[in-house]
Amino acid sequence: MTTGLFLSFEGIDGSGKSTQARRLAARLENDGLSPVLTREPGGSDGAEEIRALVLQGATDRWSPETELLLFTAARRDHLERTIRPALAEGRVVICDRFADSSRMYQGRQGLRDTVDTLHDLMIGTEPDLTVLVDMDPASALKRAKARATAEERFEDFGLALQEQMRRGFLDLATEFPDRIHVIDGDRSEDAVADDIYTVVARALEQRRNG
Amino acid sequence: MTTGLFLSFEGIDGSGKSTQARRLAARLENDGLSPVLTREPGGSDGAEEIRALVLQGATDRWSPETELLLFTAARRDHLERTIRPALAEGRVVICDRFADSSRMYQGRQGLRDTVDTLHDLMIGTEPDLTVLVDMDPASALKRAKARATAEERFEDFGLALQEQMRRGFLDLATEFPDRIHVIDGDRSEDAVADDIYTVVARALEQRRNG
Repeated sequence: MTTGLFLSFEGIDGSGKSTQARRLAARLENDGLSPVLTREPGGSDGAEEIRALVLQGATDRWSPETELLLFTAARRDHLERTIRPALAEGRVVICDRFADSSRMYQGRQGLRDTVDTLHDLMIGTEPDLTVLVDMDPASALKRAKARATAEERFEDFGLALQEQMRRGFLDLATEFPDRIHVIDGDRSEDAVADDIYTVVARALEQRRNG
Repeated sequence: MTTGLFLSFEGIDGSGKSTQARRLAARLENDGLSPVLTREPGGSDGAEEIRALVLQGATDRWSPETELLLFTAARRDHLERTIRPALAEGRVVICDRFADSSRMYQGRQGLRDTVDTLHDLMIGTEPDLTVLVDMDPASALKRAKARATAEERFEDFGLALQEQMRRGFLDLATEFPDRIHVIDGDRSEDAVADDIYTVVARALEQRRNG
């Protein structure tokens, strides 16, 4: 029986994680694999509709608790309809953000314990490997702001918050040392991509050797 | 400090609970109170949007787990934006369906423990008094089918299921004997309304005498 490899990419806004997720997918495709590149919130038809519901409207439209429930509903749908079927086919799933983002963004609002309990109850799945693209918050913020996006809510953060988020992600890496691999994102895109590819190739090799 | 009274109405489809909830609201209004009549899923702007998302489309559009998360998100919003503010003003809140409906409808799909854990984690509030309108399933089904509704998904149940649901609701009443009051719905609308009014008037009296 083949089982795929479930990878997630995490990092603060502007860290380059989405670019790196795309580059990894292209490289694996070049190697003859058929990776699935997906993202959260969203990644399945239902989850994309929930995403739209959460992200549209005023920032105080949903309380942190309701937002967490909606994101968890989206994640459950994404897991059932996209991630698990692909893994069952033995494919590599590359997911731009997963549960660690909830631990950080909803956790920041005093809900870390609730996030964990809800995750254990309704999701219960962790990536095999998480790539944390670590980045100087000032450079990341500059990059995030230069980018035009329709979803301002998730970008409209100041430097203090970016610094807090970076520390939080690094703390998560300490909490899950076997799963989360920290990559230094303050280098050329190519150098970062090479490092990530090396880590993932090793994980795939280990998976093949059982 | 005044605190309101939180009432829910439960029962199988066609049991007359929505009619009775409306009649109770009218009668309390006649007594000079300002009751809030609301319903689930829905009851607040956000919750109504989640309701629309859940109820539209094919029946297998969402898994039971995702549907439970969406209903819980809607309930949390409803609680925060409609129910709690009204109770804080000392008003009577009459809610057509609340958590017992999740215990029954999602519980039926093997999720009763999950429903309870999720409820404790994210909702944590029970009505002060629940009116269970109990009804012969065959008569209720006839009434439910005669009614034209846009939300067929919740009506397209056969007699066997109605019977199972009735037993389930009566079991719930045994499980929560202090909260759930069973009313015999197999009588004239007026007789049922009188019984419900008597029970509620007693609860309001007790509340006043604190």
